[in-house]
Amino acid sequence: MNVTIRGRTRPYRTVTFDRAANAVRLIEQRLLPHEFKIVATHDFRETAAAIRDMIVRGAPAIAATAAFGLAQGVRAFRGRGMAKFQRHVEQVYQTLKEARPTAVDPLNVMNQVRAVMTSAGSVDEQKALAVAAAEDFANRSVDECRAIGEHGRKLIRDGMRVLTHCNAGWLACVDIGTATSPMYAAQAAGRRFHVFCDETRPRSQGASLTAWELAQQGISHQVIADNAAGHLMQRGEIDLVIVGSDRTLGRTGEVVNKIGTYSKAVLAKRHGIPFYAALPLSTIDWHTRSGMDIPIEEREESEVLGAWGAVGTRNSKPRTQNHRRTYVCVANPTSGARNPGFDVTPAELVTGIVTPLGIFRSVELWLHRWELGYVG
Amino acid sequence: MNVTIRGRTRPYRTVTFDRAANAVRLIEQRLLPHEFKIVATHDFRETAAAIRDMIVRGAPAIAATAAFGLAQGVRAFRGRGMAKFQRHVEQVYQTLKEARPTAVDPLNVMNQVRAVMTSAGSVDEQKALAVAAAEDFANRSVDECRAIGEHGRKLIRDGMRVLTHCNAGWLACVDIGTATSPMYAAQAAGRRFHVFCDETRPRSQGASLTAWELAQQGISHQVIADNAAGHLMQRGEIDLVIVGSDRTLGRTGEVVNKIGTYSKAVLAKRHGIPFYAALPLSTIDWHTRSGMDIPIEEREESEVLGAWGAVGTRNSKPRTQNHRRTYVCVANPTSGARNPGFDVTPAELVTGIVTPLGIFRSVELWLHRWELGYVG
Repeated sequence: MNVTIRGRTRPYRTVTFDRAANAVRLIEQRLLPHEFKIVATHDFRETAAAIRDMIVRGAPAIAATAAFGLAQGVRAFRGRGMAKFQRHVEQVYQTLKEARPTAVDPLNVMNQVRAVMTSAGSVDEQKALAVAAAEDFANRSVDECRAIGEHGRKLIRDGMRVLTHCNAGWLACVDIGTATSPMYAAQAAGRRFHVFCDETRPRSQGASLTAWELAQQGISHQVIADNAAGHLMQRGEIDLVIVGSDRTLGRTGEVVNKIGTYSKAVLAKRHGIPFYAALPLSTIDWHTRSGMDIPIEEREESEVLGAWGAVGTRNSKPRTQNHRRTYVCVANPTSGARNPGFDVTPAELVTGIVTPLGIFRSVELWLHRWELGYVG
Repeated sequence: MNVTIRGRTRPYRTVTFDRAANAVRLIEQRLLPHEFKIVATHDFRETAAAIRDMIVRGAPAIAATAAFGLAQGVRAFRGRGMAKFQRHVEQVYQTLKEARPTAVDPLNVMNQVRAVMTSAGSVDEQKALAVAAAEDFANRSVDECRAIGEHGRKLIRDGMRVLTHCNAGWLACVDIGTATSPMYAAQAAGRRFHVFCDETRPRSQGASLTAWELAQQGISHQVIADNAAGHLMQRGEIDLVIVGSDRTLGRTGEVVNKIGTYSKAVLAKRHGIPFYAALPLSTIDWHTRSGMDIPIEEREESEVLGAWGAVGTRNSKPRTQNHRRTYVCVANPTSGARNPGFDVTPAELVTGIVTPLGIFRSVELWLHRWELGYVG
């Protein structure tokens, strides 16, 4: 999507591959929203570190980064012989896999890249196919996001006020995003609407990343505390909710997403407000039988007990230049915290699932399983 | 309640009056939870400034501070003659009134103090009565909170996990608190339970003040992001919700309280978890006919766009000494925010209202109006 720096607007992807330099280029997301910077990794170990250290986040973006990292590592092989090459590939694969051990998408995509590679005979052919396969994945990922937008934009009518939670935007993908994709498509279709970005404590991705994205694209928006959505719904100020999803259960239609999603879905149901999850097909889990079986990761207490930001004064918004990220402890320093990272929203609260293939009723995913890529 | 400083535990009230020094003593709440400090105001203008500048917050605490400020100002009169005295009293009254123009409680209490004063003939007698009336109000306020605890403690059974929102603790009152009072009474009765403190963005009073209070009293507790309560309810980890109330409508049972209360009430209802509001009788509004008629104050955008805290490192909790409160901008700096301060919870979501006179069904307040102090 477009980013404007010093008055100049240019399109960027979250992650790209530079063949000439054998480098992966990434938006350094830890500096956002206070500074926009592209960093390059020149070695697969650096790329793994970028995944591990959260320079890049969001399942599709990490998957593309891992795929490019694999191609990068494969291309850097300077030895001789297929046996040595295969050991090298395995090492690259393991290094990238260990960078984010709980994520499933990078693994799936790296397996795809390896499968394409091994269809060729020589080392050089395999190197060439690795890059092609990684780039193909990235492009298909963008196409999928674009297709989500094409279907989802019909949900956004003129004058609507749309709520979103966390960041399921282009920064979490290779480009365009999932929950944001219908917004960008609706904007392109000339529709006018307003977006409320849930702050999304404790990591505040809504306030920092989604708000930044929408600002870059010139979409009318405001940040709200996670506490405020219920009140705004009660006063008739929200017409539609669109969120992303980390995992959606194909058998039940349950949506696993950032902590707080469930609360917003319960409130939307109470107020008769349509609630949609937008997601690529790769995030549909056809195996797990119940959302209650999903272990919810508990994250660091410090996230809840404090906040990261740029030091500023109270009444004037801080200058964009002042981007050094500082942690302040907000809570009583002798208190502990619980910090579940995700929650599970049952299908009955989800009006529809926006996929690249169309919008489906959440309870009917299983019915449409063959169409949606279920492989038994 | 008790506060432990450098190993020494002593009881404190949020606000007290020192007759000898003609001073109002206040806990400097803006330094909490990082530093505990008592400050004294020696002039009614200073007391008004303490109210205005949020050294003290919470309706009952502000009301007592205003009452003491009025007595303090009245006692400082050095002129001659009843006419001059009355003009002086009026000036003191107006100064304190303007310190927090939207609050109703300080006004009511100052009117009570004036009514008591004017029953006496001489200036000296009026001075004496002003102090006595202010102290009487403070003591009655503590007794009311204690009575809330006596009724409310029956709700807390051994092993329960209790959720509370914002700070309706002793820091918001003269002592003991409203929502926290049942917890302190249950603790005194030997019951064991755990409290989840909603962080309560954007001002984080739950994380900073309620967590501090509970830590001082040695009550088991954890801070959670406002987003996490729904998930914990869904997983069966919350048994009871107790919140305070800024205003409760006697005609409808609607509870006006800190933003986010409504969301928690909707979630509690869905999960069959009892939801109580604990409040002194003075906060019952017998006139307003509908919660939808209550204008909801929009507060500063900067509250939502950032956070106040003590600078610390990410993984180690910051040292208590480092208490300088720093503002960090968390959100995209070019984005705006909506910041409603309160919300309205309908009676159907409120299991009961815990008052100093007992626990009432929220929809039956009007039925019990004569008992609850309705004056037509």
